[in-house]
Amino acid sequence: MTTSNIGLIGLGTVGSGVAEMLISNPPIFAHKLDKSINLVGVADRSIDKKRTIQFPNSVITTQNYDEIIDNPEVDVIVELIGGIHPAKEIVIKGLENGKDIVTANKALLALHGPELFDIAQKSGKSISFEASVGSCIPVVASLRDSFIANKIEGIYGIVNGTTNYVLTKMNQEQVQYDEALKDAQIKGYAEKEPSTDVDGIDSAHKLTILARMGFNCDFNYSDVYVEGISNVELKDIYYAHELGYTLKLLAISKQRKNGLEIRVNPTLLPHDHPLSSVNGVFNAICIRGDAIGESMLYGQGAGKMPTASAVVADIVDVSLGRAKITFESIKPFSGNCKKINVLDISMIKTRYYLRFSVIDKPGVLASITGILGNHNISISSVIQQDSKENELVPLVMMTHLAEEGNLQKAIIEIDDLDVVKGKTAFLRVEEASS
Amino acid sequence: MTTSNIGLIGLGTVGSGVAEMLISNPPIFAHKLDKSINLVGVADRSIDKKRTIQFPNSVITTQNYDEIIDNPEVDVIVELIGGIHPAKEIVIKGLENGKDIVTANKALLALHGPELFDIAQKSGKSISFEASVGSCIPVVASLRDSFIANKIEGIYGIVNGTTNYVLTKMNQEQVQYDEALKDAQIKGYAEKEPSTDVDGIDSAHKLTILARMGFNCDFNYSDVYVEGISNVELKDIYYAHELGYTLKLLAISKQRKNGLEIRVNPTLLPHDHPLSSVNGVFNAICIRGDAIGESMLYGQGAGKMPTASAVVADIVDVSLGRAKITFESIKPFSGNCKKINVLDISMIKTRYYLRFSVIDKPGVLASITGILGNHNISISSVIQQDSKENELVPLVMMTHLAEEGNLQKAIIEIDDLDVVKGKTAFLRVEEASS
Repeated sequence: MTTSNIGLIGLGTVGSGVAEMLISNPPIFAHKLDKSINLVGVADRSIDKKRTIQFPNSVITTQNYDEIIDNPEVDVIVELIGGIHPAKEIVIKGLENGKDIVTANKALLALHGPELFDIAQKSGKSISFEASVGSCIPVVASLRDSFIANKIEGIYGIVNGTTNYVLTKMNQEQVQYDEALKDAQIKGYAEKEPSTDVDGIDSAHKLTILARMGFNCDFNYSDVYVEGISNVELKDIYYAHELGYTLKLLAISKQRKNGLEIRVNPTLLPHDHPLSSVNGVFNAICIRGDAIGESMLYGQGAGKMPTASAVVADIVDVSLGRAKITFESIKPFSGNCKKINVLDISMIKTRYYLRFSVIDKPGVLASITGILGNHNISISSVIQQDSKENELVPLVMMTHLAEEGNLQKAIIEIDDLDVVKGKTAFLRVEEASS
Repeated sequence: MTTSNIGLIGLGTVGSGVAEMLISNPPIFAHKLDKSINLVGVADRSIDKKRTIQFPNSVITTQNYDEIIDNPEVDVIVELIGGIHPAKEIVIKGLENGKDIVTANKALLALHGPELFDIAQKSGKSISFEASVGSCIPVVASLRDSFIANKIEGIYGIVNGTTNYVLTKMNQEQVQYDEALKDAQIKGYAEKEPSTDVDGIDSAHKLTILARMGFNCDFNYSDVYVEGISNVELKDIYYAHELGYTLKLLAISKQRKNGLEIRVNPTLLPHDHPLSSVNGVFNAICIRGDAIGESMLYGQGAGKMPTASAVVADIVDVSLGRAKITFESIKPFSGNCKKINVLDISMIKTRYYLRFSVIDKPGVLASITGILGNHNISISSVIQQDSKENELVPLVMMTHLAEEGNLQKAIIEIDDLDVVKGKTAFLRVEEASS
């Protein structure tokens, strides 16, 4: 039985889970794998912190990650410190030193993935990153291997547990955003400084990784349209629910004739869409391909042991030599993917939910639908509640398919009407086959 | 760029899809894979049948599958004829001739998997079978690779599209079983002779394959408890719905302290369970592991191109040399898995739905709950509809966790009461963490 030697850098939540798995006794693979996987060293800047985990004497523990990267015994570097620096330098030096890389670092791959893949190709080494998207949900392996016989048409899903927890709570308990976020922070599902999650940045990082793989292309991360959940109003969740829709923060990318549609935004899903019942901190990703049609992968999208499970699966894949073959043979990793045009948000076509605050006067509905009609937007349903004349009331509409540029122009004109007060709210809609 | 030569045996629905993919122009992998995959021969007993597919002259077409198996140019045999004979002989001869095998044959693997894996090991060759369970749903790869760092605790799901279509139709349109089945037959979702599907046999084959892999064990297929949907009554779907449950045909296996629970039966799921909204011909499989918690894989579980997608992904995996590594290194395929004790159905513990047909007399409820209590079964909810005294009425109950052996004894006693008429209906319940 051969052995693979692992060096682990970063002993935070996920790193501790990985370490626990690798030093478990009996070894977790004892009954499964004809290969010995051996943790030889661990680096963390707070290595001296008191921990529940007890490393055997054979494991080097150090504050200095170079001790791991420069150790000739180490075959695989597992980078779990997150962020761009020094993670990027660790990955590059590891590759240059002839080590394979396993990482869960979505920001690093979104911003510098193609550059790092290039370096890996030139070094004859591999980078594995299943844990960077959806934690233990096997979406990277599925897109890369299981669905390889497909032209991928769309990838969309819920890839951030924090925002899904907040929206689920708002939806199920009718609480406002601030209260739901506070609860998520108390329960440890949201950071004190939550903007990476609630502003959609984390989702955009993950979507970038998936879209590059699925569409076998490259584009700039900064071209992804990103809109978070901090402006979501409870009343829009309520009205949309009445109309048969559930609000989720979706990461969406689709191959269009004229380029790539790629965006993160609060999105309405019909109640019977499989993503609409993905609640709490769970994640799920739908993949649409020309052969498979619609598929979905669902599971815990974060957390110590689920993420460690994905990291360790990658470690096994590398240790068996499969990752090397994959990296050499499958083109999204060959470092010469074609650059693809990212569509401006004004060019997307979808259905919309609209909420106007109007003064209830004769002719209001006619004025609004008239402007929408002038911009080629037709209405599929309307909710207008009973009210006294001249009172401010919400007027809610669902549109048929419309182009966002037209919608934006129409809203500017409508918001200019005397009978319309405040800013019009709008939400994009996603259906099972759009 | 190296080449892998494929011989395809069986040109039915799935086989035609695979052939179309392999001879597509431009090749489906042109932008994805640094490997050429070449269809060199096709055998089918009705090879002369008129087909829409046009093979290039370079492809051998024959009625005689030995021409493919004995062809020294062929590297990989793709067996898509189904059934036990001559599929088994084809696989064995292929392995002995030094070919790797790709198959979608669930019956063959359920009945003879370990024996064939043994032969493959001894020949230094591999058998790949992603398409045998859930078509394009990547459940084999996930259980084998992505979730390898887990102790698998449970595998359960909807693995037969025909029965799911029938139950969905009964549920959504309130039609009886016979009518729903007839509709499925007209639409091509059910065979004229539908017993393999409706009696749960197809589900049991697939479950056997997954359970052997997930629990890294062996057992006899004939020990799987199998109950189909042909006795499901519409009224039970209705009452269960009122109580908050949806009826599905589930394939369920769980690692228990004293052995393996493995069974196929109509099962009630709480409405908010992710499997309860899997409708029509879609399939979905939940996998529970100690690290990942609960995960679910969802997609089309049958059909020409979805299944061809899985077969071709396996062909790629074999052609790249990854399947060989997997087969050599991962123990469920090493041919010496330990035999595991399958629990008798009387030993399982779950919650139950019960429907008694009773004459509405004072004391009936007390007699029935008394007998249940004597057998250690307690009730969580009851529906009894208004009726005239002395009329026959349904009495519906949900129990707390109970042992099936106790339930069976209680039902025999209850069915013996003068006030109980006809046979008591009962259904097992599955919850997210049982």
